[in-house]
Amino acid sequence: MDIKQLMEQMGQQARAASRLMMKATTATKNQVLLNIATLIEQSHDQIVSANQKDIQTAKEKGLDDAFVDRLTLNPARISAMVESLRQVATLVDPIGEITDLRFQPTGIRVGKMRVPLGVIGIIYESRPNVTIDAAALGLKSGNAVILRGGSESLHSNQMLAQFIHQGLEMANLPKNAVQVVETTDRSAVGELLRMKKYVDVIIPRGGKSLIERVSQEAQIPIIKHLDGICHVYIDDKANLEKAITVAFNAKTQRYGTCNTMETLLVARGIAKQVLPILGEKYLQVGVELRGCPETQAILNNINPATEEDWATEYLAPILSIRVVEGLDEAIDHITKYSSQHTDSIISEDWNRCMRFLNEVDSSSVMVNASTRFADGFEYGLGAEIGISTDKLHARGPVGLEGLTSQKFIVLGDGHIRK
Amino acid sequence: MDIKQLMEQMGQQARAASRLMMKATTATKNQVLLNIATLIEQSHDQIVSANQKDIQTAKEKGLDDAFVDRLTLNPARISAMVESLRQVATLVDPIGEITDLRFQPTGIRVGKMRVPLGVIGIIYESRPNVTIDAAALGLKSGNAVILRGGSESLHSNQMLAQFIHQGLEMANLPKNAVQVVETTDRSAVGELLRMKKYVDVIIPRGGKSLIERVSQEAQIPIIKHLDGICHVYIDDKANLEKAITVAFNAKTQRYGTCNTMETLLVARGIAKQVLPILGEKYLQVGVELRGCPETQAILNNINPATEEDWATEYLAPILSIRVVEGLDEAIDHITKYSSQHTDSIISEDWNRCMRFLNEVDSSSVMVNASTRFADGFEYGLGAEIGISTDKLHARGPVGLEGLTSQKFIVLGDGHIRK
Repeated sequence: MDIKQLMEQMGQQARAASRLMMKATTATKNQVLLNIATLIEQSHDQIVSANQKDIQTAKEKGLDDAFVDRLTLNPARISAMVESLRQVATLVDPIGEITDLRFQPTGIRVGKMRVPLGVIGIIYESRPNVTIDAAALGLKSGNAVILRGGSESLHSNQMLAQFIHQGLEMANLPKNAVQVVETTDRSAVGELLRMKKYVDVIIPRGGKSLIERVSQEAQIPIIKHLDGICHVYIDDKANLEKAITVAFNAKTQRYGTCNTMETLLVARGIAKQVLPILGEKYLQVGVELRGCPETQAILNNINPATEEDWATEYLAPILSIRVVEGLDEAIDHITKYSSQHTDSIISEDWNRCMRFLNEVDSSSVMVNASTRFADGFEYGLGAEIGISTDKLHARGPVGLEGLTSQKFIVLGDGHIRK
Repeated sequence: MDIKQLMEQMGQQARAASRLMMKATTATKNQVLLNIATLIEQSHDQIVSANQKDIQTAKEKGLDDAFVDRLTLNPARISAMVESLRQVATLVDPIGEITDLRFQPTGIRVGKMRVPLGVIGIIYESRPNVTIDAAALGLKSGNAVILRGGSESLHSNQMLAQFIHQGLEMANLPKNAVQVVETTDRSAVGELLRMKKYVDVIIPRGGKSLIERVSQEAQIPIIKHLDGICHVYIDDKANLEKAITVAFNAKTQRYGTCNTMETLLVARGIAKQVLPILGEKYLQVGVELRGCPETQAILNNINPATEEDWATEYLAPILSIRVVEGLDEAIDHITKYSSQHTDSIISEDWNRCMRFLNEVDSSSVMVNASTRFADGFEYGLGAEIGISTDKLHARGPVGLEGLTSQKFIVLGDGHIRK
């Protein structure tokens, strides 16, 4: 069978499975998640040994340590997967929720019912734990999923898929509700991205090049996240202590995450007070600082920030700093350079905080809080499949609800339109 | 200036205008709508004479009467536009609405704020009243819009744009919040569909070929509506009188609309009771009936319905009829042939009605009501820019809310992530 036929078959199977998943009760879907958790918990050795094959191939290919680390499933990570499945089982089922059911003047009652999207294609890198996260969220939200992980993780993914299939079948649900693409041929991704008839949405999870390729090729709507160029603006009416704590946390709590601050904006009126203290703290933990001329005048011996710096997602211990006149200039800078992911103001001034909330057009806009909070768990969504920087459908952290749609329902009693 | 440059300039202007529209207060936006209404009300003659130029050209081109009718602005239609502007002014402003603002265990408070999408491109046929409808909804929802109507309506659209611009400027809002593409060069549409940087969403309004072209070419998310192959299923536990009233209304209240029933499904147990009465009523008003063999056996002298009939949106006084065993077969037929627009069950049985509501995956699912109700006004949305058969973002009738997005807001007091 060629790749096109193979993918077409997977698409048909997914569509058929999705019709049954759509009708599955909350109890059944939870049971599936708990089944899979138990099966995985009992199979540490099998999983580790499948994973070892992948690790060996990756090492032979000369892939770097960070890559191998992301690929590795050790007992702690397997336990985390089990935990995650059980946690998704505890989440409220979004499916079937009926809202806004109101009478209209004609006598019909109109409302909305939350329903699954249908079939979701998820394309990700060689991180086998994503297989479980994506399957768990897809199943709980009543969808069928087609998973295409990085080819280096194939053995691990196939092993995990076995447990997922068992878990589904134990609950009399179709195993095709979760399918792992088993070919490492890259053209399979291309096919997946064009199967309009069988796939309702594509979610790419991974680095920028993966997401850009998917955006270019997809003929299906995608839920995606591009850059995270996040800002903290310290207003001259900021509380000094909060400003220092939050700006330090936003940069240093983790460097490689999309919600890490990449540019710090400081109001001129407070720059001389706050920058020396903050600069010292950053340098102590090894953060490289790059500044505008005014910042350079306050902090000695730091490199200049170039135009390119303002537009860069470092994902590293580097921070660009700019002194601005005040709120207007801060919002202008953010409007120009932000990737519309997450931006935060530190201020005690009511009107400025409200203006920042209203006028900054990012997926998360914060007041006196670290950008690092932009996360599905922190937002109480229970779990997240990713963070969307798009404006349509899902924006910001995407949890179960982002994998659903709403249809209108109309209840009448023989009502006709006049 | 070539087309590419021209469109690029319009895109930049729209983006700049959208930043100001985003901040416009409800009162100001309403004032703009009322200004435009007054200006149009005072300028019937000017509008009619601009429209006459378009009509003359259309007639010279040999376009048919239906085309010319859609193009025509007479005093009644101009009054309807004025009425529509005033009505949109009375709608609740969706922008700035904050919902679900709740404390999380970390102490941050997380919620959502409704914000404009930004810049909306609307592509439509030669129906100048759409210019006003689209501008009104776009402005009220705080967006900037780029309007590309059919080239035969250019004079009318330019005239209407003048009043829109005056109305904006009287309220100190940028006239570029509503721009009409003034070239009739078709490549302008192609450019519009590729301006990712400046346009956030494209809404095509018109026939199937327009929408298919836009879907193929667009590199920007689109909110679209394809076919309306709508079904009514008469269950054997239906009330006969309701069944007849609703099924008659769903087909005959208007023939050319997307929410008109195209296929009637009838349970075997009630077919011999209901079909002779309904058939007679349809034939009296000139509806051509096409049936499955069982239907043909009950209704004499009707044509057979072919496989193609089940998949056809007639938009005409033609109806295909099929006798089915019961609910399961009806849902199977709908799953296979429905365009997921609007489908309705007629039944007095609680469990069957609930199953139909839960299991039919269409943008509107109805019980004992005519499919003709699938409409923004009838649903209480106040107005509609179209009906979406997509699942992502907006589904079903799209009103003001469909032209908005939600961002997360996070309120802290120096909170950091641990």
